[in-house]
Amino acid sequence: MTYCVGVLLDEGMIFASDSRTNAGLDNVAKFSKMSVFERAGDRLIVMLSSGNLAGTQAVIGLLNQRCNAPDATECLWNATTMYDVARLVSDAMREIDRRDSPYLEDNPAGFNASFILGGQIGSEPMRLFRIYAEGNFIEAGVDTTYFQTGEVKYGKPILDRVIKRNTPLADGAKCVLVSFDSTMRSNLSVGMPIDLICYQKDELAVRMRRKFGEGDGYFRELSREWSKGTRQVFRGLPDLAW
Amino acid sequence: MTYCVGVLLDEGMIFASDSRTNAGLDNVAKFSKMSVFERAGDRLIVMLSSGNLAGTQAVIGLLNQRCNAPDATECLWNATTMYDVARLVSDAMREIDRRDSPYLEDNPAGFNASFILGGQIGSEPMRLFRIYAEGNFIEAGVDTTYFQTGEVKYGKPILDRVIKRNTPLADGAKCVLVSFDSTMRSNLSVGMPIDLICYQKDELAVRMRRKFGEGDGYFRELSREWSKGTRQVFRGLPDLAW
Repeated sequence: MTYCVGVLLDEGMIFASDSRTNAGLDNVAKFSKMSVFERAGDRLIVMLSSGNLAGTQAVIGLLNQRCNAPDATECLWNATTMYDVARLVSDAMREIDRRDSPYLEDNPAGFNASFILGGQIGSEPMRLFRIYAEGNFIEAGVDTTYFQTGEVKYGKPILDRVIKRNTPLADGAKCVLVSFDSTMRSNLSVGMPIDLICYQKDELAVRMRRKFGEGDGYFRELSREWSKGTRQVFRGLPDLAW
Repeated sequence: MTYCVGVLLDEGMIFASDSRTNAGLDNVAKFSKMSVFERAGDRLIVMLSSGNLAGTQAVIGLLNQRCNAPDATECLWNATTMYDVARLVSDAMREIDRRDSPYLEDNPAGFNASFILGGQIGSEPMRLFRIYAEGNFIEAGVDTTYFQTGEVKYGKPILDRVIKRNTPLADGAKCVLVSFDSTMRSNLSVGMPIDLICYQKDELAVRMRRKFGEGDGYFRELSREWSKGTRQVFRGLPDLAW
């Protein structure tokens, strides 16, 4: 399985993804699910992938190859809006689907790549998309602060309680990490390392990026302090009268 | 959908269930999912049901009818252990399944009643079971403090962080209520009223029972204080260095 979160705040955006992939319980591996396309001062595009690894890698590979082609007409580097980027990703997904699907017909997994896509290009506002496996997509509006993919339920309540559009970027990042900690405690199919990017609005470059591996000091402290804090909150909650 | 939790602590047991049933989004109703069989000083048996309502009601109805039959040979009132109670529930489930299944073959929902069963009989220790739709069941051991059914994922992280076998009964009850609050905030298929029983070990009677309806003052305060408390914990968490 997978757990990915993309958050859109007034101050900026947060992207986070786990790295566990598995084809059955006895075939577990680590692959980063975060792809970054950055040209400082011009654009930052982040993709978080979920679904069948062969499918997501094929899509990212195709997008990358087109980025590097000397005669590229339409690619992530010359798209002028994030909407156009979403369409390019969608087109690549459908191309891979057409190529692979006939050979996957007998495979219940099939082609099921899907993405959270976000970023900023030039003077456009920051934008956040959720692209479904079929290649259609939705964009976060004023009432939508985040998109999740994969094992979304465990980590959703904390996002729902804490994240508002005006939440400071630093608090949002801590909340996303706690959401990952909660998910990993309750579900074995989501695992470290966690890739995290905090993007400050209008910077058009990544200045805050971290990878949290097994035993990471900060992540352990965050998890410990969160558990301690919540137990304290419990002790302070009003007692129930019967 | 449904959300039910049964907790086994050193001090006692907690049972909680929501009341929302739905057959499609336009057919939503309220039915309590908690059934209590109590004979003060002798036994307390609590069943939390999930799955198709016609199935769970049929099972509870059959058990009740057998309890009330004047010539009852085997029923919940004369079972001498909770294990025997679990077998009686299982037998009733299989009987209903045999009766109904041939008529439900074309219905994707089919017969899918399942139960959390717990309680105490005489001098036996408290025991907690999870009975699957097929009628087989598991019992909570020393490492298992709770069973959930239905929409279990949203409310699991808080149980995993807080509930230990030696958690005081009052704290456990608050934690279960917060688990319900988290679930209801993130998922519309779980809804009030919430039935709650806190059973104090060896009392062999229900002294603490509450139903929390829409707008319940205590529940609202609990939810508000929990949200406020967790946001405070966030502000106190160590900042991330980049």
